[in-house]
Amino acid sequence: MADVLTIREIGADEFDLLWPIFHEVVAAGETYSYAPDMTFEQARQLWTSDGARCFVALLDRACVGGYMLHANQPGLGNHVANCGYMVTPAARGRGVAGAMCEHSLEQARQAGFTAMQFNFVVSTNEGAVRLWQKHGFEIVGRIPNAFRHARLGLADAYVMYRAL
Amino acid sequence: MADVLTIREIGADEFDLLWPIFHEVVAAGETYSYAPDMTFEQARQLWTSDGARCFVALLDRACVGGYMLHANQPGLGNHVANCGYMVTPAARGRGVAGAMCEHSLEQARQAGFTAMQFNFVVSTNEGAVRLWQKHGFEIVGRIPNAFRHARLGLADAYVMYRAL
Repeated sequence: MADVLTIREIGADEFDLLWPIFHEVVAAGETYSYAPDMTFEQARQLWTSDGARCFVALLDRACVGGYMLHANQPGLGNHVANCGYMVTPAARGRGVAGAMCEHSLEQARQAGFTAMQFNFVVSTNEGAVRLWQKHGFEIVGRIPNAFRHARLGLADAYVMYRAL
Repeated sequence: MADVLTIREIGADEFDLLWPIFHEVVAAGETYSYAPDMTFEQARQLWTSDGARCFVALLDRACVGGYMLHANQPGLGNHVANCGYMVTPAARGRGVAGAMCEHSLEQARQAGFTAMQFNFVVSTNEGAVRLWQKHGFEIVGRIPNAFRHARLGLADAYVMYRAL
């Protein structure tokens, strides 16, 4: 029987579904600038309130990843969306991130955004950079030494962008 | 008698000094992505809380501008500072922005930051772009159509950066 991947929106009351993955990804200190010891409440607030919408990816009912969609800027820049994606290490290489990316692009279009921007793609996260490029994103900026990678030390961060 | 420019840090309780300038700049809709109808409390919170430090520039005791300094990212990106600067139109061309920029670079160094990044310099704000370049910043990214300029329509935004 084939695995079935479903993606659905959750509210703040279901953030515990995603939290183990969120915590694992952030604690590793390799891809997100969030503090590695960020708490459940801090994470939940950031990903489910103030206009942020949170989605989870379920593989045969188990949560294997999630993403957050919101406006990248307030006011006169709020036509450009921003997303962050996380996948549990155990499910990597199975197309979860790509499926979430396509889902988020469609959600962003439906919400009226005209472009999507990633502000902080760590340059050493080469799989992610290639994946976003495959989904239509271009590198439009590079911030020198913007990230303190837990294993590799200072790393550049890319700004990536695509129109919708 | 020569004009004397002084720059000093303020707390949330003194944000009313800066508010008329803040409101004027934001309401114009030409340089900041903040909502043009942003309220005093929203502005005050953004510029004086959650780690944001606010400074005002006084010309013979009248407030002519101000700036905000904070970490551009949380956690593993918090060694890079970010600032926003505002000058009242009546005092432009008198070196206020440049003086605030130099002041902010020194404050950022003293606080332990190792670089400064501007995320959203509107490309049509050519005077600002040149001024930041003069103070050592380089354009390291360009976001297409990221800003809805009140008079000019869609405009690109630059990401600018300098080491400290």
